[in-house]
Amino acid sequence: MTVTDTPASPIVSASPLPDRLADQLKQALGPKGWSQDTDELAPHITDWRGRYQGSTPILLKPATTEEVATCVRLCHEAGVAITPQGGNTSLCGAATPQGEVLLTLKRMTAIREVDIDNDSMTVEAGCVLENLQTLAADNGRLFPLSLGSQGSAMIGGLISTNAGGVHVLRYGMTRELVLGLEAVLPDGTVWSGLTGLRKDNTGYDLKQLLIGAEGTLGIITAATLKLFPRPARMEVAFCGLRSVEDAVSFLGMAKQASGGSVTAFEIMPALALEFVLSLIPGARDPLAGKHAWYVVCEMSFGRTDGARDTMEAALASAFDDDLVQDAAIAENESQAADFWRLRETIAEAERSQGRALKHDVSIPVSKMAAFIAAADARVAELMPNGIPIAFGHVGDGNVHYNVIALDDEARHTMIEQASTISGAVYDTVDSFGGSISAEHGIGVLKRAELAGRKPVDVAVMRAIKTALDPKGIMNPRVLL
Amino acid sequence: MTVTDTPASPIVSASPLPDRLADQLKQALGPKGWSQDTDELAPHITDWRGRYQGSTPILLKPATTEEVATCVRLCHEAGVAITPQGGNTSLCGAATPQGEVLLTLKRMTAIREVDIDNDSMTVEAGCVLENLQTLAADNGRLFPLSLGSQGSAMIGGLISTNAGGVHVLRYGMTRELVLGLEAVLPDGTVWSGLTGLRKDNTGYDLKQLLIGAEGTLGIITAATLKLFPRPARMEVAFCGLRSVEDAVSFLGMAKQASGGSVTAFEIMPALALEFVLSLIPGARDPLAGKHAWYVVCEMSFGRTDGARDTMEAALASAFDDDLVQDAAIAENESQAADFWRLRETIAEAERSQGRALKHDVSIPVSKMAAFIAAADARVAELMPNGIPIAFGHVGDGNVHYNVIALDDEARHTMIEQASTISGAVYDTVDSFGGSISAEHGIGVLKRAELAGRKPVDVAVMRAIKTALDPKGIMNPRVLL
Repeated sequence: MTVTDTPASPIVSASPLPDRLADQLKQALGPKGWSQDTDELAPHITDWRGRYQGSTPILLKPATTEEVATCVRLCHEAGVAITPQGGNTSLCGAATPQGEVLLTLKRMTAIREVDIDNDSMTVEAGCVLENLQTLAADNGRLFPLSLGSQGSAMIGGLISTNAGGVHVLRYGMTRELVLGLEAVLPDGTVWSGLTGLRKDNTGYDLKQLLIGAEGTLGIITAATLKLFPRPARMEVAFCGLRSVEDAVSFLGMAKQASGGSVTAFEIMPALALEFVLSLIPGARDPLAGKHAWYVVCEMSFGRTDGARDTMEAALASAFDDDLVQDAAIAENESQAADFWRLRETIAEAERSQGRALKHDVSIPVSKMAAFIAAADARVAELMPNGIPIAFGHVGDGNVHYNVIALDDEARHTMIEQASTISGAVYDTVDSFGGSISAEHGIGVLKRAELAGRKPVDVAVMRAIKTALDPKGIMNPRVLL
Repeated sequence: MTVTDTPASPIVSASPLPDRLADQLKQALGPKGWSQDTDELAPHITDWRGRYQGSTPILLKPATTEEVATCVRLCHEAGVAITPQGGNTSLCGAATPQGEVLLTLKRMTAIREVDIDNDSMTVEAGCVLENLQTLAADNGRLFPLSLGSQGSAMIGGLISTNAGGVHVLRYGMTRELVLGLEAVLPDGTVWSGLTGLRKDNTGYDLKQLLIGAEGTLGIITAATLKLFPRPARMEVAFCGLRSVEDAVSFLGMAKQASGGSVTAFEIMPALALEFVLSLIPGARDPLAGKHAWYVVCEMSFGRTDGARDTMEAALASAFDDDLVQDAAIAENESQAADFWRLRETIAEAERSQGRALKHDVSIPVSKMAAFIAAADARVAELMPNGIPIAFGHVGDGNVHYNVIALDDEARHTMIEQASTISGAVYDTVDSFGGSISAEHGIGVLKRAELAGRKPVDVAVMRAIKTALDPKGIMNPRVLL
């Protein structure tokens, strides 16, 4: 047998919950620990965008790791599948049950430890990201993970999907922010990998396997997270540019000139700004003239003095080199927030324009401009009335490459041709050495694309999945 | 079946090389691609410290990924085990064959790509670390991995063991410096995971599994590595302190005061400095008085101006808080190198003192002082004539906790009681939530310790190993 011909693990199809298992689960968790109430279940069996509608025979609400372990062990013994759920903010349908037992981590919200001298905190899976940012700040530290859904996304789900966000450029993906994990494995074994260590070379790094596994290898119940010094000063500039090429050159120059102080570098085309300005109340253009592209560039500094100088010097060089046409530096935090809001409300403004075909992809930064040009050309061939909008975290090579339909005819083409257009975008991504999922994951949305495009990877993943979850009960249908 | 009762993969014991396989390998690699010459084999079948003596029926020297794949496929088909070897600088016996086919990566030294705009370089496994540091510098970038054996250690081995070094505090372990990998899996399949992407959420992060797997899951043939801006300025201080507690407090304060600019923070006790001063030619004490502990503190800055001020301000605060008793800031690069040499020559100076029991362990930084005190107390009970010396990368919680024997009686106790003393040190490590291997790995040296101390982890690792290497041919005896 070779790796590539390992049979896939069985996918347990959801079947009616056996009465005996239901009784065991209810008894183990007590009256507060489960629900079969239709109203309570409703928000849990659809995703927040309403794209996936699901069902579950029972919602389990364990409050401790031991209770999670009991649930998983009982389901494992009965061969019944489980969908784990955090804040239910998946964009790929990874947390919507289709008949599986649904297990929410929302009652596991304990802060187990904040260890300031070790720059770490240990928290349970159900903690909401925004609360963890606040907890870090209250302790004079920074927890840098930052993204749109931070008011409801829970850390367990963020880790299970290896979430990205706006600060990856400096601090890395969620993967790089995790020191240790506690998880319940598919047979109900508790794996105690919580550690505040920066260095631990004792074999395979098992936490890395659970991070980004989308709940298919076990349920994360707690994590030890890295904390960072709070920057003494942040500088935010809103810049008008002629092209993506210029933006990438400006990025490289700004990183060098600031000695790696660039903490965010977001790009948006003229049309995205136009949508935001016309649709988002209070949004104002910081620049007088019009430009083809805009960049929000954020730098973070350990010391206050010299911070503004560094940003100004970087912009001055960029003007000299004709890379940036105009720029405004935020005078205070409120203005910085205004600049950021122009970037952060693109998705909202775009949604109100109607239907969009969305692609969360990544490309080596050096090839970003060529990729966007090539993808635009492919889309123009397939959907002449479609309008591509490429925006996002260009600093780390992640672009949200969306195609929008502004009229009925375009909408019709989009619905008819969706898979052809997306396939062409992903083919273009592949040809530039990119990834078809930069930060949103695979879920059920991109499972077929992944299997078709990375057969060796998927074969290896299936071999691992089968080894750790031979009955295939953990989040079946997702990822693999 | 549950994860924890998965049977271990078979360990293929080394047996005489079948003639047919030998012929196939020789034919596939051509005359330059293999050796059975005793003189050529000699340096490859012992480790550089001469602690492990091994043997091999043949040394394979493939020059391309395809040749590596052919070797592995042929060995897989014949069920013959392979030991992969890079620069042969393992401290744990991980690269010394005991009858296995030995495969060196030393002919795979191509630089496949340097992508400056993407801050990445793609290089083959046999590239020596020092050459890669130079390559990055020649391109105006920093490759921050830095450690004692950098003149001979090869990047494939450094990745396979997730090497640490002195810059982990700021840049992370080798794991965090790898963007993509190419590897030959145990059945000879080439896994093409080379990518310059910062964000790629397409399922399990397979490269993470190979990083630190010590060659037990496949052979790394190439890697895409992260590059960083070169600091505009580094400041290095040599400080005298009263205690480890004070050093940890100083570290926390310096990290905050410099906004995360501390890039190295190394500690050594008075005795270590004494050894170095008496044994290393040209070594001089930068401070006038004697202190119980010494710290080398390095900060790196993106801009030149303000750099010295930041270091001076941090030290001034530390004096005010009575954390640091005396300090010297290097006036130039040559003085900085002198300060660093006092730290870097400890191992050499210690070796010339005679026998030492060494423990490469890590502890949460916040518990470092308590750990050293507790370990010293245990060692004093078990070996009253032994002298503990704890030094190293305290900034990231990694301490080299060594016990040395200065006279014959102590040496005798050490030899008799070695496993008891080490066991007590590791028990103390465990009680503080530490790791028995911070940066050197497991190899054959700590395999039994690992199995005894982390049974769930080892069970999961074995399940993965069996799934990917069912015949157990990849670096058997090592790690698991």
